[in-house]
Amino acid sequence: MYSVDRQKLISKLAIPGNTKIILLVLDGLGDTPVNGKTPLQEAKTPNLDSLARESDLGLIIPVLPGITPGSGPGHLALFGYDPIKYQIGRGILEALGTGVEVGEKDVVARGNFATLKDGIVVDRRAGRPPTEESAKVVKILSENIKTIEDVTISFYPGKEHRFVVKFTGENLDDRLTDADPQREGKPMVWAKPLTPEADRMARIVNELIKKIGEVLKDQGRMNFALLRGFSKYPNLPKFGEVYKLKSAAIATYPMYRGIAKLVGMDVLETGQTVADEVETLKKHWEDYDFFYFHVKKTDSYGEDGNFAKKVEVIEEVDKVIPEILRLDPDVIVVTGDHSTPVILKAHSWHPVPFMIKSRYVRMGTSARFDEFECAKGSLGTFYAVDVMTLVLAHAGRLEKYGA
Amino acid sequence: MYSVDRQKLISKLAIPGNTKIILLVLDGLGDTPVNGKTPLQEAKTPNLDSLARESDLGLIIPVLPGITPGSGPGHLALFGYDPIKYQIGRGILEALGTGVEVGEKDVVARGNFATLKDGIVVDRRAGRPPTEESAKVVKILSENIKTIEDVTISFYPGKEHRFVVKFTGENLDDRLTDADPQREGKPMVWAKPLTPEADRMARIVNELIKKIGEVLKDQGRMNFALLRGFSKYPNLPKFGEVYKLKSAAIATYPMYRGIAKLVGMDVLETGQTVADEVETLKKHWEDYDFFYFHVKKTDSYGEDGNFAKKVEVIEEVDKVIPEILRLDPDVIVVTGDHSTPVILKAHSWHPVPFMIKSRYVRMGTSARFDEFECAKGSLGTFYAVDVMTLVLAHAGRLEKYGA
Repeated sequence: MYSVDRQKLISKLAIPGNTKIILLVLDGLGDTPVNGKTPLQEAKTPNLDSLARESDLGLIIPVLPGITPGSGPGHLALFGYDPIKYQIGRGILEALGTGVEVGEKDVVARGNFATLKDGIVVDRRAGRPPTEESAKVVKILSENIKTIEDVTISFYPGKEHRFVVKFTGENLDDRLTDADPQREGKPMVWAKPLTPEADRMARIVNELIKKIGEVLKDQGRMNFALLRGFSKYPNLPKFGEVYKLKSAAIATYPMYRGIAKLVGMDVLETGQTVADEVETLKKHWEDYDFFYFHVKKTDSYGEDGNFAKKVEVIEEVDKVIPEILRLDPDVIVVTGDHSTPVILKAHSWHPVPFMIKSRYVRMGTSARFDEFECAKGSLGTFYAVDVMTLVLAHAGRLEKYGA
Repeated sequence: MYSVDRQKLISKLAIPGNTKIILLVLDGLGDTPVNGKTPLQEAKTPNLDSLARESDLGLIIPVLPGITPGSGPGHLALFGYDPIKYQIGRGILEALGTGVEVGEKDVVARGNFATLKDGIVVDRRAGRPPTEESAKVVKILSENIKTIEDVTISFYPGKEHRFVVKFTGENLDDRLTDADPQREGKPMVWAKPLTPEADRMARIVNELIKKIGEVLKDQGRMNFALLRGFSKYPNLPKFGEVYKLKSAAIATYPMYRGIAKLVGMDVLETGQTVADEVETLKKHWEDYDFFYFHVKKTDSYGEDGNFAKKVEVIEEVDKVIPEILRLDPDVIVVTGDHSTPVILKAHSWHPVPFMIKSRYVRMGTSARFDEFECAKGSLGTFYAVDVMTLVLAHAGRLEKYGA
């Protein structure tokens, strides 16, 4: 029942409790067979398989069949937010991914270095400069542009041609069109307000871009910039309030730490390895009742098309499962936010393996955790947006609906 | 896509016919394994298994994954009514469960006997008095309070601290807040109108509660009452009109007879045993083309946590299957309205075993009817609200959608 306002429904049914929940997300976990096997089938995973024997299995659809999610929608759905209803601007996602702190009044935008010639945008990505090179140009901007009118401007380097701009000031409005011709070989298209309240912001944005053009006029191909995805910090219903959970995120990458923060989770300090993350989980076990535990590298190696390395990361996670289970969580889920098939070297729409273990599951259908065993699980193929409801039910934290 | 108005869609496609349908609902049928087996797996069910061989199997989700339904939403979904869209007030469900006849203009509320001390509600359930004891106090109320202003008041005993109040009069409105502080140790909170049209009703309700307090002042812990869930008879699309079916309900408990009546089914007189219900079915076989046949005790023993007795009821039903099949229904469905796992002693969210037999099914996937075989069925795991469409299709009672 996809169109239901789940936050509204669940906030009425959720009750506080003492039960402990772990949502273990292996980013981009799902895959398709290469030489007859997916990475999850190829990996030696005695501990995940043993957990599968005591779990209920299924496959989850991140958004809709055939829709490939970005990290934002993939995670929002897992956290129970309808990813069609709650859309997060590109600017804010880029900022989160870059580790930029965004205040409630700030507006952020995603910047592209571009090449302008005789008033025409001839390259929207300035020939994809190396990250080190573009970072230097970002530094030049930071030194030369501090304010536009009474608005403070901050620049943050990104990957290759990308960077982030943050606007800090009073009464800033994000309802603007992109300052971007969208296609190459066209004259610049300036930001336009979508509402009269954004007139001033459009003026500031366009003034900023002109200033950038002046400062960078001798920087060769990176002599101009486009700004897109103007967005403020989105006002999402708070995870903890809706679900009556004290929740924490354990994640190594800024993007995922950022998304967790967006929904109101505490974000714990942790190291760079899966083992570090387990230590963090153990250290804070008593402080929270919900842990979102994110493993990034399954996705990274999927994006690289590196089958062997994706297998290795899965096996690395498998090795820490017993240590996690020794904490004796009431509910543990192992899943992904989307698939990242090695063959595609990119996110995909394929349903994602899912298993849930609690006292109340219909266990015993499978002795393996992989895409095909999950397809036979008694949970069937269902929407990721229903994961949190299922988790809360298995944790004894939902009251009956109706009499 | 779940958000479709099914009543509207189906009413356009449904056509009358001569085919006969039985919807056999074993209340709270679904379960989870205890020592490796669910009651349905443990039960000796040669007849249900034989039917499974000729049926298509699946699992049904009553409301949403993880949502535990009350009997109201569980049954509404089975009857094809979106249980989120059609919500039935607690007052009306309590009235139906108690066997109270509710007219179209009446308002009903669920009452709790409570303990008031120095203006503070110290016990919202008056110490859960035995049903016999509270029934006596209901009698005292009936003798002492007949009307408030021009509204007739009727009291009906319920279980333990519960009772039902019916308001009969002109222009009664049910848009009121509960007259209930919700928590103990708080002063009384009186009913408030949610719309100006309900001002008079709020006044009458609060006047009634004060009168109850006066009449019961010497009744010890049962010296006060809270009234909740004010509701009128809901205006549901009529089952028979939408589906073009002449429909009848065979059920022993008032709650289920009431829900069937709510959607417009004829409710047949029957005895207390499953065998009695089969006799009723045979007796009226020529009079209707749709029979909702309800078995209560699977749920009752689930709620008691009595595994052996739940198995026994399933076996009792199994024994009457040949007699039912001798009537040669065109379509027979065997399912439940929700799960009531023995381990939980309560309703649960777990998907419910479902099988459908007709000339047109993809049969032969299973030789057993249980939770795990149903998970493998070719119907998959689907929403209970889609059961009626499937039933009508298998009965040859739905025209093609579109050209």
